[in-house]
Amino acid sequence: MILRLKANSAENEIKELAERLHSLGFRTNISTGAHQTIIGLIGDTSKIDTDTLVALNPIVEDAKRISEPFKAANRKFHPESTVVDVNGVKIGEGWFHVISGPCSVESEEQIIKVAKSVKESGATLLRGGAFKPRTSPYSFQGLHGEGIRLLLEAKKETGLPIVTEIMDISTIDLFEDVDVIQVGARNMQNFEMLKELGKCKKPILLKRGLANTIEEFLMSAEYIMAGGNSNVILCERGVRTFETMTRNTLDLAAVALLKQLTHLPVVVDPSHAAGIRSLVAPLSRAALAVGADGLMIESHNDPAKALCDGAQSLDLDMFRDLMVDIRNRVAFEGKKM
Amino acid sequence: MILRLKANSAENEIKELAERLHSLGFRTNISTGAHQTIIGLIGDTSKIDTDTLVALNPIVEDAKRISEPFKAANRKFHPESTVVDVNGVKIGEGWFHVISGPCSVESEEQIIKVAKSVKESGATLLRGGAFKPRTSPYSFQGLHGEGIRLLLEAKKETGLPIVTEIMDISTIDLFEDVDVIQVGARNMQNFEMLKELGKCKKPILLKRGLANTIEEFLMSAEYIMAGGNSNVILCERGVRTFETMTRNTLDLAAVALLKQLTHLPVVVDPSHAAGIRSLVAPLSRAALAVGADGLMIESHNDPAKALCDGAQSLDLDMFRDLMVDIRNRVAFEGKKM
Amino acid sequence: MILRLKANSAENEIKELAERLHSLGFRTNISTGAHQTIIGLIGDTSKIDTDTLVALNPIVEDAKRISEPFKAANRKFHPESTVVDVNGVKIGEGWFHVISGPCSVESEEQIIKVAKSVKESGATLLRGGAFKPRTSPYSFQGLHGEGIRLLLEAKKETGLPIVTEIMDISTIDLFEDVDVIQVGARNMQNFEMLKELGKCKKPILLKRGLANTIEEFLMSAEYIMAGGNSNVILCERGVRTFETMTRNTLDLAAVALLKQLTHLPVVVDPSHAAGIRSLVAPLSRAALAVGADGLMIESHNDPAKALCDGAQSLDLDMFRDLMVDIRNRVAFEGKKM
Amino acid sequence: MILRLKANSAENEIKELAERLHSLGFRTNISTGAHQTIIGLIGDTSKIDTDTLVALNPIVEDAKRISEPFKAANRKFHPESTVVDVNGVKIGEGWFHVISGPCSVESEEQIIKVAKSVKESGATLLRGGAFKPRTSPYSFQGLHGEGIRLLLEAKKETGLPIVTEIMDISTIDLFEDVDVIQVGARNMQNFEMLKELGKCKKPILLKRGLANTIEEFLMSAEYIMAGGNSNVILCERGVRTFETMTRNTLDLAAVALLKQLTHLPVVVDPSHAAGIRSLVAPLSRAALAVGADGLMIESHNDPAKALCDGAQSLDLDMFRDLMVDIRNRVAFEGKKM
Repeated sequence: MILRLKANSAENEIKELAERLHSLGFRTNISTGAHQTIIGLIGDTSKIDTDTLVALNPIVEDAKRISEPFKAANRKFHPESTVVDVNGVKIGEGWFHVISGPCSVESEEQIIKVAKSVKESGATLLRGGAFKPRTSPYSFQGLHGEGIRLLLEAKKETGLPIVTEIMDISTIDLFEDVDVIQVGARNMQNFEMLKELGKCKKPILLKRGLANTIEEFLMSAEYIMAGGNSNVILCERGVRTFETMTRNTLDLAAVALLKQLTHLPVVVDPSHAAGIRSLVAPLSRAALAVGADGLMIESHNDPAKALCDGAQSLDLDMFRDLMVDIRNRVAFEGKKM
Repeated sequence: MILRLKANSAENEIKELAERLHSLGFRTNISTGAHQTIIGLIGDTSKIDTDTLVALNPIVEDAKRISEPFKAANRKFHPESTVVDVNGVKIGEGWFHVISGPCSVESEEQIIKVAKSVKESGATLLRGGAFKPRTSPYSFQGLHGEGIRLLLEAKKETGLPIVTEIMDISTIDLFEDVDVIQVGARNMQNFEMLKELGKCKKPILLKRGLANTIEEFLMSAEYIMAGGNSNVILCERGVRTFETMTRNTLDLAAVALLKQLTHLPVVVDPSHAAGIRSLVAPLSRAALAVGADGLMIESHNDPAKALCDGAQSLDLDMFRDLMVDIRNRVAFEGKKM
Repeated sequence: MILRLKANSAENEIKELAERLHSLGFRTNISTGAHQTIIGLIGDTSKIDTDTLVALNPIVEDAKRISEPFKAANRKFHPESTVVDVNGVKIGEGWFHVISGPCSVESEEQIIKVAKSVKESGATLLRGGAFKPRTSPYSFQGLHGEGIRLLLEAKKETGLPIVTEIMDISTIDLFEDVDVIQVGARNMQNFEMLKELGKCKKPILLKRGLANTIEEFLMSAEYIMAGGNSNVILCERGVRTFETMTRNTLDLAAVALLKQLTHLPVVVDPSHAAGIRSLVAPLSRAALAVGADGLMIESHNDPAKALCDGAQSLDLDMFRDLMVDIRNRVAFEGKKM
Repeated sequence: MILRLKANSAENEIKELAERLHSLGFRTNISTGAHQTIIGLIGDTSKIDTDTLVALNPIVEDAKRISEPFKAANRKFHPESTVVDVNGVKIGEGWFHVISGPCSVESEEQIIKVAKSVKESGATLLRGGAFKPRTSPYSFQGLHGEGIRLLLEAKKETGLPIVTEIMDISTIDLFEDVDVIQVGARNMQNFEMLKELGKCKKPILLKRGLANTIEEFLMSAEYIMAGGNSNVILCERGVRTFETMTRNTLDLAAVALLKQLTHLPVVVDPSHAAGIRSLVAPLSRAALAVGADGLMIESHNDPAKALCDGAQSLDLDMFRDLMVDIRNRVAFEGKKM
């Protein structure tokens, strides 16, 4: 951490500030230039805000962090890639798994039909929304507990582990038999929920928030890991920009960078990022090529009648065709499915 | 709602689509151009997604909404401005109230000292964080229930109604004696929490999310109102952009536009928007001039030692000076404090 | 400038890097922590990129600038506010001038009618586009040289100095009698043009680019000033964000911050920022309150028939009404018009 | 184009508006709902702004475009992919070419060394900056005419066609022997320059602006094409977002979407998008996989001493290694290099 002091700071003020910093447990390195004095802080700065430091003393002009604030998720301290085991499905370095299923669970018939089909096409996990975050209170909100029950039926039929989103920690008991709990983009900084999820041992699929930086994304993973649960799978799903032709802007550079910064697995959701069916296949290919460890793709038996997000869902034939292509490419990359 | 059809849609396909739309309860108006056919939907489209319509039928190229999806919050249907009464403090058209206090409640001494001082300076509500959303799990997270207890002590001493943030609905019982429950920017789309808050009658101060549009902001208010609670105060606090010199980019045009679109009161938080103490006064003046119904300003007895957000907090003297200025300006605007 | 070195940098590598930095004219301050070594650069770093420093040596992990790269525009080195004199109209601290006129000059009758009316209402400069930057090649592109001739006619009639936009430096001769040359948002980083404008002595009204930071804005002013022309007026006109209800997002915090960072005058264009007529008045009031030195407002004798930007133009009556209000407020602020 | 009328529009007002629209050459389709009347415009709306329509008449609430405003660039009207021929190097569908070279031409020795090496590695065009857009007037600005002369020397030595950026149309004569003229991101909406470039027949490499939408990008191509030059190569190079870890956010969904919307070739510049050397290889692989027609990659014989953008340049060995990988992948995709 580097503190830049105001232009005319008096020597005794600087001394006083340094003593304050020492009392907080830091060593200091003071460098006096012609126009500017700067103080370097040496010690564990992960527990202190730059804001707090600026506020410490009126002579501080600003503070800049020079080491990453994430520890448990940091590849520097854990060079080996984490592979999360979901009932035998390995998510992480060397593997490439595809999670698929409908935006919403709508009926037993629907979810079982989709599950059987995507399994046959090569998906190894089943997704389906039981609790649905919708912008409008007047839109379909999901089947809730009944949705989870139907997902478990589909799991019984196909053996596919299931992934579904939690929207409020009070419903955690309903997720007892769920294999992967998803935290949606809008809840990436629902810190109370992250803390609770840190207490369980289940794999957590954490989606990047619409306007969250890569660092904030890792800090949210850190919340879960700090609680004792290191089974975190990161999911890039697009960020919000000025562009309106696509639903969001998929940030594949973030995927490549995350693979360097953290040991956690990273998957990509091209369906929500693009919001347009015809972009799902090219973005899936790009995600694999950029180094992602897997995909999460919306598929539906009848997208035209889907209760949500139909415009971005593949029908089951399209999904099958895409998987033929993906399978070839995964082999080319030397990864296993 | 307008549906644009694909270039070579056959007549029977168009007819089939129209029938489907009629079965959903809409009337249709079909317009056939040289290159393009469009269908106008007539009826209540607030309960349907554009996505769903695109997915309805493969001949639909895209769908555009032409009427606002918010109803309860819409000024068109409720032309008269809502004034929210908080224990006698009136928030809304014709009034201008200033909410102030520290980012975090830190101790009884601190919160009482701040409360007395800001009251004397002219603030009419006291804010203070008991549950603090922090990017890092290693940062100070607030005093929780004890923080609320201390706020209530400060209320007893000063008579100021209190505003404090809820981060998880499971803690709702702790807010029984709180006067205004704040929903933070990160929880603006925590829909399960909004639904629960719709069931109580307490005033809710709803902050705009960092990357949420004005329409989404109003839809979140709509969640609360749809549950039966129309005591919603909107709070603009800056959106996230590429600019890094300020913490966020305060969107004062949104305030002026919200005042036209909705009957709900709108207040502005210049402290979190700017993140820099020296910008709080000019942005407060601008917020009043643009038509806001109030302000929420961070103040602290000793910003240098604040446990969070010290860099943007005013000390109690600065706050007093600002309020002298604000009082003059409120008189100039013909509003009451 | 602070260089952070990679974790396992060898002592001789660090020594070599330090020598390289000394050869570039910097003094260095090396600070060795448990996990990290950092080097502080002392000297004039305004002429060096952070990128260049990262590239200097493979042991450099990253570089952060700690002093502002702008010099001529920096208030630290020129504490007194610059007041730009435009034929006797003083733009800068203590004054508040309103520039008004149509988006495009359309005819002699139109521009003279508008000029007379806005002068009567209190505007002190006349704006009008002769060269129009339009997204589509099929839209009206302006009257070019003829447009400037008509502006000069209007100046002759009313005495109002004129402001008009240059789009290509090859047309500079046409601007000989123009009082203020405007550089539009899309040309804020047209560096070759900025350099040429630095060679003349005419006042330049420089608009902030749609996606340019405050620092980049000041660096573009620096381009003009480095050429010897210090008559630069900055104009905030909104930045591009995810919000679609307004044309752009007006950044009034940038105005307050610019007034602190630079001695140059800052004006605000609420018309282009909002793109909606009904927001022009509230944003004008807010701009004055936040500390701007003036406004630039689109007005038109018949907005319904304007060849561009009609939706955001005030008609001449609306402009007159707004100016009555503004005049009162300028008096309240203790400024002169 | 769809016009939405205000709630209480009188019948005679609607009639008057319709007549006005007919006089502008449109047919109209009027649809009257319970709360709202809308008018559909039928005819060529590419030459009219939505803004202009809103301004037409006070009863218009807003206007929405429903057909794309680009014509010459539109794949709907030109289904066959355009392949731009650059001295025998074919850029477009079925091919994958890599353009490489240094950010700046620095010396004859440097550019010839780089040119020979990248050619050997498989690049088929040489890039190098002679005119450099730099944020700071104090940074190195390029060798200008001498830079182009050195590029032509390198071309003579290697046979590689050359690509270099134009920053001001007044220098066009210097580009007589240049094979591809690059328009940089900051000049994407320098419309006067685009018009001039439309008059020559040389291939133009048009980079997407930092904050420009896909539609605006295509409209800038349309400017060049409307002038008669259809040799336009689009280049995605990242857009500006709130993320600060990468220089920009590479928008690969835009590449996939552009391939659907337009017949023009699309290449990707991963170097400028990421700004970080270690991301160039994964983003290059992703660009190929998403469907791009080529790459533009910065390479330098000694990145540590590069006069600009060293941090993102590959050294010549890294570039060779990347090209071995790319060559395999191009074969896998069934494309030719």
